[in-house]
Amino acid sequence: MSGPQTEQIGRAECMRLLQYESFVGRIAFVADGAVQLRPVNYLADERGLVFCTRHGSVFAAVAAGTPVVFEVDSSQPLHHSGWSVIVRAQAAEITDASELAFLRRGPLKSWAVSPDEQWIRLDIQEISGVRIPEH
Amino acid sequence: MSGPQTEQIGRAECMRLLQYESFVGRIAFVADGAVQLRPVNYLADERGLVFCTRHGSVFAAVAAGTPVVFEVDSSQPLHHSGWSVIVRAQAAEITDASELAFLRRGPLKSWAVSPDEQWIRLDIQEISGVRIPEH
Repeated sequence: MSGPQTEQIGRAECMRLLQYESFVGRIAFVADGAVQLRPVNYLADERGLVFCTRHGSVFAAVAAGTPVVFEVDSSQPLHHSGWSVIVRAQAAEITDASELAFLRRGPLKSWAVSPDEQWIRLDIQEISGVRIPEH
Repeated sequence: MSGPQTEQIGRAECMRLLQYESFVGRIAFVADGAVQLRPVNYLADERGLVFCTRHGSVFAAVAAGTPVVFEVDSSQPLHHSGWSVIVRAQAAEITDASELAFLRRGPLKSWAVSPDEQWIRLDIQEISGVRIPEH
């Protein structure tokens, strides 16, 4: 999704797409000397987004604060159109007990439920998006 | 999408999902000193997959042969279920005239059409997948 017919999406619309138009994104980061890429279901607010994984997974590097890229997109193949929003973020494990209690009451759960659940917040540093209109 | 309730997907099923169940994937790689993550529409066969971008884009590093990770997934939010297939691949620009002619007749086009089109092949080195069944 790049080329002369793409349109840049403004920040406010990027935030709207991130918050309301998608629930699964993909996160990329370097760990164990290689690029890692995984889907996560997530919940976003104005400041950033949270997702739930489990301790001891490949996400250990993310929890430890490695820089990450997070991406959401949507495609309409019939029209060869779509959009993509890309976030650069700093990750941190959520350890505050009251924040964890709040999150556990919320709509987001790891789809693969685990007693080793680990909540990670991504604080948005950069957000940008592109759209390919119908043509 | 990780945890004790995930199931590994065998190679043959991973290849089927890659070839027939998705048309947009996400590619991650390192370029300009940072992790890059972009969606691409693609076409896969038994050996690998191809996608079309344009010269001079962030994909220059990919065309030059940097290692990449490619991911496709599908989610059923109502059931908190889904699958994800992850490919590690070696990228190469397609420059053979007859192969390019064949590709240009095929179903795959860059959605953002450009006179600077560049076709890239990913030769699969590793493929693996996980599924979270309905629960």
